This record gives sequence, C-alpha cells and structure tokens, in this order.
Amino acid sequence: MMKGVILGINPDARIVDITHQIPPQDTRTAAWKLAAAYSYFPRDTVHVIVVDPGVGSDRAIICARLGDQFFVAPDNGVLSAVLKADHHPNEIRFLDNHDLCLDVISKTFHGRDILAPVGAHLSLTHDIESTGAVVPAADLVSLELPEPSQAPSGELRGEVILIDHFGNIITNIDKSALDAFLQTNGNCRPEIRLGEHCIAGLQQSYLQGLPGQPLAIFGSMGLLEIAIFGRDACQALHVACGDRVIIARPG
Amino acid sequence: MMKGVILGINPDARIVDITHQIPPQDTRTAAWKLAAAYSYFPRDTVHVIVVDPGVGSDRAIICARLGDQFFVAPDNGVLSAVLKADHHPNEIRFLDNHDLCLDVISKTFHGRDILAPVGAHLSLTHDIESTGAVVPAADLVSLELPEPSQAPSGELRGEVILIDHFGNIITNIDKSALDAFLQTNGNCRPEIRLGEHCIAGLQQSYLQGLPGQPLAIFGSMGLLEIAIFGRDACQALHVACGDRVIIARPG
Amino acid sequence: MMKGVILGINPDARIVDITHQIPPQDTRTAAWKLAAAYSYFPRDTVHVIVVDPGVGSDRAIICARLGDQFFVAPDNGVLSAVLKADHHPNEIRFLDNHDLCLDVISKTFHGRDILAPVGAHLSLTHDIESTGAVVPAADLVSLELPEPSQAPSGELRGEVILIDHFGNIITNIDKSALDAFLQTNGNCRPEIRLGEHCIAGLQQSYLQGLPGQPLAIFGSMGLLEIAIFGRDACQALHVACGDRVIIARPG
Repeated sequence: MMKGVILGINPDARIVDITHQIPPQDTRTAAWKLAAAYSYFPRDTVHVIVVDPGVGSDRAIICARLGDQFFVAPDNGVLSAVLKADHHPNEIRFLDNHDLCLDVISKTFHGRDILAPVGAHLSLTHDIESTGAVVPAADLVSLELPEPSQAPSGELRGEVILIDHFGNIITNIDKSALDAFLQTNGNCRPEIRLGEHCIAGLQQSYLQGLPGQPLAIFGSMGLLEIAIFGRDACQALHVACGDRVIIARPG
Repeated sequence: MMKGVILGINPDARIVDITHQIPPQDTRTAAWKLAAAYSYFPRDTVHVIVVDPGVGSDRAIICARLGDQFFVAPDNGVLSAVLKADHHPNEIRFLDNHDLCLDVISKTFHGRDILAPVGAHLSLTHDIESTGAVVPAADLVSLELPEPSQAPSGELRGEVILIDHFGNIITNIDKSALDAFLQTNGNCRPEIRLGEHCIAGLQQSYLQGLPGQPLAIFGSMGLLEIAIFGRDACQALHVACGDRVIIARPG
Repeated sequence: MMKGVILGINPDARIVDITHQIPPQDTRTAAWKLAAAYSYFPRDTVHVIVVDPGVGSDRAIICARLGDQFFVAPDNGVLSAVLKADHHPNEIRFLDNHDLCLDVISKTFHGRDILAPVGAHLSLTHDIESTGAVVPAADLVSLELPEPSQAPSGELRGEVILIDHFGNIITNIDKSALDAFLQTNGNCRPEIRLGEHCIAGLQQSYLQGLPGQPLAIFGSMGLLEIAIFGRDACQALHVACGDRVIIARPG
C-alpha cells in the first residue's frame, strides 16, 4: 500500500526496501540497521522509517535533512543512531503540513497515510521547509543505545546488539572504541570474551577462523562481530542480544 | 522470472510486490489482501495475481478494467472481494489473444508464461479490448467470502478471516456492518466477543488498550481487528481463521 | 546497502531480487536457481550473485558476458550451471580494475563493496573489456553438479537437488535425459521411484494427480519434479536433497 501511495505522488520514485526483518515494534534494532545502511544511498535519498509502536498517538513525525539525505520517521528514537554522527546541513522539523498526507488519516497505519506520502513529496521537491517548524535535535525522543565503556580495570565492555541472517553476533563495539583501548594498552593483541568463550585477537576475514571455532572481526556494519566460518554462531554459542562482550589485555 | 519477463516487454514498468505471504493456493486470503491494497495504487496500475491452484487446467484467465485499474488473474475467485465494490468503467474479458503470452507456455507456471507478459503488455497499451471477448461478471468463478450477518437475537455475527504479521486478528466486519448494528441498537457501546474473551467498546488506536488486554479497533484494511498493544494477539488468545466474532449490546 | 550503491552509480538501474531464499553459503542451490531464471531476463541484464563463502579471501571476481547477458560473481562455482549451456558471445574476465569498486573495500561484504558497484558500472557501459583480463572458462572454479546417469541395468538415475516454496521436490533430471531414456526403452510409460514411492508415468499439470498421491511432472525450472496437488510433497514423503530418484521401465 505504501508503495502504491508513493508511486501515485512520484511516479519516478525508485523504492528500495532496506529491511522487513525488524522484530515488531523494535525501535532499537531499527535504529542500528538504519545507521549501518543509510550512508550507502545516493544523495537526496528519502529514508522512510515505519517502525512505529506509537501509531495513532500524538507522537510527532520527524522530517529531517541530515547531510545530503532526508528522513521521515516517527519521533520514537529510530533516528538516534543516525543522529550520533555530525551532519551538515542538519535541519530537523516536526510535520504539521497535512497537505502532504493522504486525505483520510487512519489511527492504525501512518506508514501509508502520512510517512509514505510525505516521503514521496520530499523525493519530488526536497523542500523540507514546507513540512513544519524547526525542532532542536535535543528535543527528539532518544533511545538509550548502549555504548561501549572502559571499565576501571581497563577492560573495554560492550554488548551484543544484533544477530544477523547468518547467525553472526554483532556488538556495539566500533573501531574507534577498539582503537582507544589499544592505544592505552600498548597495541596488545586483545582477548575477546563472550560468556565462557575467549577469542585471541581479531581476524580480517571470516575464512581466517579455525574450523568450528568462533572468531572476532569487524563486519559490514563497521562493528565488532563474533562469527564462526560457515556456521550459525548465535546458535552454536547460545548468545542473545544484551549479552556482555569484553575486550581485555591477553591473560 | 516474472519480473524478467515483464521488463523484457516494458522496460519502464514499475514493479511492486504486494505480498509473498499468501499461504500456498489460498485464494481466499489473496482475495482479501488484494481488496485491501489495490485502491492505494495509481490509476492505470496493472495488478497481476498469481495464486493459482488450477495452473495447467483450462480455467480461464481474466483481463479486467475495474474503475481506473487493471487486473490480470486466473478465474478462480481471487477477484471476488474486489468485485464486491461498484466500478465504472467495468470491463471483464477472458484472455484468448495468445500473442500477448510467451511463445512457450508451460502447464506449471502461468504466472511467468501468461500473466506476467499479458500484464506487461497492458501496462504499455492499456488496450483491454485486444485481450479477448467480454464476459459478464456473473460468469466468473466466485469465492464464498463470509459476510457478517445479523442474528435473530440482534447480534452481529462475523468471523476471523486473517492474521497479520503482528498477530493482529482481522475479522470480516467492516464499518458499514457495525454502523447498521449501532443504528438498530441505539448507538450503544457494543461488546465484542471472541471465544471466551469479551471486549467492551472500540478503540481508536492500539495504544488505548489496557496492558496485555485485547482491544477492538478498525485497522488499516478497514476491518474490525482484535489486537493486544505490543503483543501477538493471535498467539495470546489462541485464535484461528474461521473463529466466530460477535458484536452484541452490552450485557 | 547494495541497492543504494547501485543507484548511486546508475540512478536508472532496474533492480530485481531473484531470490533471498538461498541457504547461507549454498553455492550449489544458487547455481541451479540462477540457471533456471537468467534466460527470462531482457538482453543486457547484469546478474550480480552474492553467495560468497570465500568473501575476504583472494578468490577472483568473475565479470562475464554469456550470450546477451552479463554476470558478476565470485569465482566459486555459482556460474557452473549457467556455463553448461553454449553461449555466443562468451567472454569471461577476472576483475582487476578497482576503479569500478567502492573506495573502501571491506573483507566481509564484497557484495556491497565490489559486486554491486561493478554490476552498476556494467549496467551503464556494458564495457566488459575494461573489467580485467580474459580467463578461459576451464580455469574457473567449477561445482560438481550431479548429472543424471544411465545405470548398467538401463535405469536412469538422478537425485533431488532442490525443494521449492510449495514443497515440490525438484530433481536434476531434465527433458533431454528423459528423452534419451525413452528412446532406448521403446517410449514406455516410465516408472518414477523415490524411496519407497513408485509413480506411474508423468503428468502434464499438477491437477492430474490423484488426491493425496505423488505425481511426476516437468516443472517451471525445466526439471522433473515430484509433487502432490495442493500439498507439501517434501513433508508428506520425507524427502531430502541428495535422495536418489530412479526412472525405470514399468515393472
């Protein structure tokens, strides 16, 4: 339905589905996935996000230009991970121009009735000023996305945030967090600990793992992953989102 | 394969997948889903329906213009719910122009060999007259889609027809059926009964439900739904398609 | 991410997903599915294949023109089934022009960093010569795809290679293999044996099966299938990929 609405407004729109695999109402997973994907899209792409547990309430609808891309999303934190980066220009507005919406707005499917038509209009005009009044980023609903942190003992502590299609275990530890750890630890070969598992050092590719053994690697989202070559690491290691991951000096 | 065939005939076709979630051969679910979605597409859209348990038999292929949209479908009832509405113009034909099909027509995949190329040609020409001879709507295969009915006791009786991706329980009760019930029952606040569950009144949005409690709401298909905010109502309430749903005066 | 990269290079690209149902790292299933689908796409289509267990290793990237279509794929055998057919022209090269790739090439997602941008450039230019040096087909990694064979007893022996979405059981027996069997067996009505099941003769359409009974048919991939009308044959018959299928003279 959303695609029909979009093509009715902008018949030349190119529509790409980033993912339909977000668990229902899981704004946090949506926030991570969006942050990993959006920068690969061409300038002036309009990203429409419809993970929206508050549909039908009076939560606002965000229309934003962040760098060279546009976003239309419910104000529920799904942009939190994207907003961690610096973007210029950076223009955030709350929708109050209902001319951009369908004539009849249900209280159960704002994706179809609001987000899709607003996104389609923006893809034609890129006229973000007409959507509504400017709002400071600090006024947006923000998700508490876990950040890796340095423990007093010197360990770097992160956690599992996503499991991908292959069963790879994705953590919230990015390269800058690891680099900071390595700098204060003499560029040691770190140990990566996940439950009872202890992995020595990082690999450059999945193939460098020992058969059946977990390996640590920076994956395609730019985040530290635990994987097993050719297998589903999540199943093999009995891991769940929220599990602690520790980077430490070799014992 | 169907998309390759379509783009070979009309390189500018915009192709949208309405759904790949229809259970195998389930023409009834296809009929409901199509009826909920088609009107959101732009004028002159060609809807190609390939839920086709009779593939390879001599069941006819329908080419229709209904209002400002086109349909290509096996004559097995998948258009039954769409055809309940009045459409002007309303032109239904049975395909007999095989120049619109692939040269080789298998008996196992008419979606690829007939429906896709016919749909692609229609998207170029909108020339429905060339597809075949006119057929009266009454001659089409019709699915018996359950209709809500007024019981002698005054109750409105419907049934569960679909479970959506979120586990919301969708019934065959539309707004006009409810309005008729309310008019003859003094605009009472109705009770909605589903198995042992009894829900007082309707809500405007999912958020208005009590935590963990089922609520009744008109959803995005324009039909009465039973849902639980943030949960899978179908699993929680042990409901299946065909289960009775009753609207009654408050007890 | 791949689609964003493609549209950034060729904003007019028409992108079709052939399938996302290949089991992780299963190059053999990918090879069969690609061979069944590619010829239905228009001339100059660029097929980008990203079933890539060797991502991050130094396995080559193939850029090929086979007949009137183009292919970009890791050199891991995924083109093996396509390459069985004769194609003119037939030009195979190994990518060494890194100007066609993203600036930063990860070791974990060559689909995004190499295959998508190379495919997008080819869709603009069709200039396969600029991708790299010519390689003989014989130098490519080749999958051992099982071929049906004539047993000394005269039986034709094949095996189950795929189970489709409907539970239909797809074998590696194509029409030419069956025709050869029939020619040397007096055009008998063959028996098809699968485990303890024995099916008399082939049908032209799924509808010709007896209720609940397995039938044999050439399906939409051009391969012999065992199916049960309106049911999931794989579940009903307890069959798995690799199971032997025998075509024999009637007992």
